[in-house]
Amino acid sequence: MNAIDFYFDFASPYAYLAAMRIDELAARHDCTVRWRPVLLAGMLKVTGAVPSPLVPLKGDYVLRDLQRTARHHGIVYREPEQPVRLLLNAPRAMLWIEQKHGEDAAAAFARRCLQAYFAEGIDIDDERELRYLAGEQRIDGTLLTLGLRSETIKEAFKRQSEEAMRRGVFGVPYTITPDGEPFWGFDRFGQLEEWLAAARAVA
Amino acid sequence: MNAIDFYFDFASPYAYLAAMRIDELAARHDCTVRWRPVLLAGMLKVTGAVPSPLVPLKGDYVLRDLQRTARHHGIVYREPEQPVRLLLNAPRAMLWIEQKHGEDAAAAFARRCLQAYFAEGIDIDDERELRYLAGEQRIDGTLLTLGLRSETIKEAFKRQSEEAMRRGVFGVPYTITPDGEPFWGFDRFGQLEEWLAAARAVA
Repeated sequence: MNAIDFYFDFASPYAYLAAMRIDELAARHDCTVRWRPVLLAGMLKVTGAVPSPLVPLKGDYVLRDLQRTARHHGIVYREPEQPVRLLLNAPRAMLWIEQKHGEDAAAAFARRCLQAYFAEGIDIDDERELRYLAGEQRIDGTLLTLGLRSETIKEAFKRQSEEAMRRGVFGVPYTITPDGEPFWGFDRFGQLEEWLAAARAVA
Repeated sequence: MNAIDFYFDFASPYAYLAAMRIDELAARHDCTVRWRPVLLAGMLKVTGAVPSPLVPLKGDYVLRDLQRTARHHGIVYREPEQPVRLLLNAPRAMLWIEQKHGEDAAAAFARRCLQAYFAEGIDIDDERELRYLAGEQRIDGTLLTLGLRSETIKEAFKRQSEEAMRRGVFGVPYTITPDGEPFWGFDRFGQLEEWLAAARAVA
């Protein structure tokens, strides 16, 4: 089956909005989704960009745009209490789950974490919260904690972020179609869908 | 009649795309459009942002996105031969036309300049080209040249850019609805239209 690569950062609200829609979009075009966590901070180092909420003038606008965009798409969005920051535990936990329980379990965990963070006020940088969330999927919390702290997993996450940049990923959400076309931003999902439909018509 | 403020820079391709659609969008909701040229470079100084085509990794993507977005909306787009740069003559000419011939003539001139630059390969930083384009509207070229070079006009353009920033404008295209709601980017025109429709339903 054709797979769409979906790059996201657990700290990105626009990636959250995209994450709530990517599976159904892909399914409409007989595609699966490969969920790929990356570290946006590493990309911003290369591009020299600053997280939008911290940019003068732009910060207030972005908060307003997020609320409006979420409402427009019928998605619940509650601004996290914590300021913008690195979220490393969630992607590491996800990668450990991927290695031990497979891609589907990892994708379900990622979706659940994003919802918890951006709709339910749960701090997903807290290992205890991650254990609860994994527990909902009957994943062992103790093994998860050991796993996400391991050097192997830390390295795997770093490598995955670097590989994404080599493919040209410079921001999130970032989607690459089965035939290699890149789409940056939730606001390009209309064009992404059009692209997938056209590709199917040709096939 | 209710007026929408439409902020743009003559050098911004996304502002060009938006400019090709803003009038008909406004008309559908019984609004007029106040065309407001600004200097994006001044805003980028405040926000610390870099023009997208010059950002590592992002540059190539943006060119692809522009072509795709133009096609998606059925708008002709040809990348200008000149590299990204300041365009000062066109906005100054526009402001002089606004003072001497009124807002409608100025808006028509702005639309014509953007089309010339982004669809017809005409260098709108060249005063001679600006005279030709103004001539199509029977505006006197010699007076235009004197006007756009005058200190009064230079000052007026600078002031207008600064006023825009005081209203929170940090990028282009940037649109503010009659009731003060800001929308940044051509990709927010769907939400802008939804906002105008809702405002009319309430009125």
